[in-house]
Amino acid sequence: MNTKVYRLIAVLGLMSNIDVALAEEPIQPIAPVKEINLAQVELGKKLYFDPRLSKSGFISCNSCHNLSMGGTDNLKTSIGDHWQRGPINAPTVLNSSLNVAQFWDGRADSLKAQAGGPIANPGEMGFTHQLAVDVLASIPQYRIEFNQVFGTDTITIDHVTTAIAEFEKTLVTPNSRFDQWLLGNQDALTSKELSGYQLFKSSGCIACHNGEGVGGNSFQVMGIVEPYQAKSPAEGLIAVTGKDADRFRFKVPTLRNVEMTYPYFHDGEAETLTEAVDVMGRLQLGKKFTDQENAQIVAFLKTLTGDQPKFQLPILPPSTENTLQPRPFE
Amino acid sequence: MNTKVYRLIAVLGLMSNIDVALAEEPIQPIAPVKEINLAQVELGKKLYFDPRLSKSGFISCNSCHNLSMGGTDNLKTSIGDHWQRGPINAPTVLNSSLNVAQFWDGRADSLKAQAGGPIANPGEMGFTHQLAVDVLASIPQYRIEFNQVFGTDTITIDHVTTAIAEFEKTLVTPNSRFDQWLLGNQDALTSKELSGYQLFKSSGCIACHNGEGVGGNSFQVMGIVEPYQAKSPAEGLIAVTGKDADRFRFKVPTLRNVEMTYPYFHDGEAETLTEAVDVMGRLQLGKKFTDQENAQIVAFLKTLTGDQPKFQLPILPPSTENTLQPRPFE
Repeated sequence: MNTKVYRLIAVLGLMSNIDVALAEEPIQPIAPVKEINLAQVELGKKLYFDPRLSKSGFISCNSCHNLSMGGTDNLKTSIGDHWQRGPINAPTVLNSSLNVAQFWDGRADSLKAQAGGPIANPGEMGFTHQLAVDVLASIPQYRIEFNQVFGTDTITIDHVTTAIAEFEKTLVTPNSRFDQWLLGNQDALTSKELSGYQLFKSSGCIACHNGEGVGGNSFQVMGIVEPYQAKSPAEGLIAVTGKDADRFRFKVPTLRNVEMTYPYFHDGEAETLTEAVDVMGRLQLGKKFTDQENAQIVAFLKTLTGDQPKFQLPILPPSTENTLQPRPFE
Repeated sequence: MNTKVYRLIAVLGLMSNIDVALAEEPIQPIAPVKEINLAQVELGKKLYFDPRLSKSGFISCNSCHNLSMGGTDNLKTSIGDHWQRGPINAPTVLNSSLNVAQFWDGRADSLKAQAGGPIANPGEMGFTHQLAVDVLASIPQYRIEFNQVFGTDTITIDHVTTAIAEFEKTLVTPNSRFDQWLLGNQDALTSKELSGYQLFKSSGCIACHNGEGVGGNSFQVMGIVEPYQAKSPAEGLIAVTGKDADRFRFKVPTLRNVEMTYPYFHDGEAETLTEAVDVMGRLQLGKKFTDQENAQIVAFLKTLTGDQPKFQLPILPPSTENTLQPRPFE
């Protein structure tokens, strides 16, 4: 056989190895975005960064879901209008399109449904949907762009959240070292990281943290083996279903980019991955990891950091004489 | 003569027209950035967007000098740590390298001297230089980058402000329609805008708003002909010099991108350009502009919006177990 044929066989061999590996592993690589409404994305990106969707003119989506910082604010609980202390840890917006539902209690069944929440939450952006829409409608450049994207002169909150959600769909993070390994690059992980992954599977972490998002696809009780001493009043899914069985049942967070999304848990009480792994092991699995085991799992978790979304900081169209003024100190 | 020679003569004619125009006009086009330390710029860009330089972990340079919004927060006065109400309007960071000094009272003689101010101001970012440096030094990716940029293992506030200032030097906005006109494109302005510019010169606005920055190069008393009824306690240059003659003497703000940097004046009390032009005419020049004159000047001012800085949103290196936690609610 000549060299070309050898190469072909080698490639086929690699491909089938990948297929086997993917089929066997309970975590799947993040797929890059393939179908998207680019016009909505570009509009949604502006809206995501626009603090005029808040009463104060100071808080944007990006304030608490900061795309420079893993799509979070890296605070235990977020800061809202008038510096109010939020009740819960801001989940990352990265890969949120992979979640079964949005918010820790899953009360929004889509990115679009989620996007309207903080705008009108008195403890977050403190505005109303109507006033937010009025602000946008007073800005000619926005009116033109909404018209181009949605084909209507009348801006609605539905348009606003549709565009923001479309932008958020682009915020996936493929190409992590772990995904490179899943896709056949055996050199992508160190032996310590691989040991961590084996332990992550054999200990049972994988039961909840699996799939493309390594979590985000189910609700589970926080404190299965041992109760969790929560400092937060949040009670999880019961707020949505009203069922007692759903008390302290929260959406399992994605572990994608978990190195960047500290602090951890719905109350943000675990400051480090070491602490989070230790608490999860004990409370959810009845397992006390040794220091070495913990370090291996943490090493594995850090391989889940993918390519962060890359885009130009959007430039926002200026307000006009007709734009409602922000009211930060009222 | 052949076509080529005709073309050459036409080009030479155009060039000499430009030279004459530039020599005669009291405003010069903004020069694009030519000499810069790119390594410092890239580090400084991260620092500019890093809220970990504040006590709360929530406020970055970009919070009040938002590069999506003309380098300002578009608020009368800014929001500081714990939602404190700032005493003065945040000046734009755009083209601030052209200013004779920084802050409204000119108390910083360089961008570098300015950059350290808000970090340690209890009413702004509420941190200390030492703690800010400690945070950065706890983050390996920052340590490596500072080492590459400054050649030392020891991060200092001097390095931090040097890098931020170098980034800020890139935030110039060339290529406004007015600059295109200055550079010889006679179609760049409408007749209304040109009338506004003529009026801007003949009425005396140009006496203070001139040069590359259309302002920013001198200090002037606010309220020369008529006293200004300020709502802000700020007294201007007197805070720096101690001289009575400098009471209410403020740095003349740049009018570059003024369409985006509302509201206006050191106390942010003028919400619109129309109002600002009216007040300036009366108080500084003893002149009441007609509605038509005002509209012409406003039309001219809107031609000063240049190319906004274009760059990718920086991705910040994550904190570690050794990083001081932010303290937003203490």
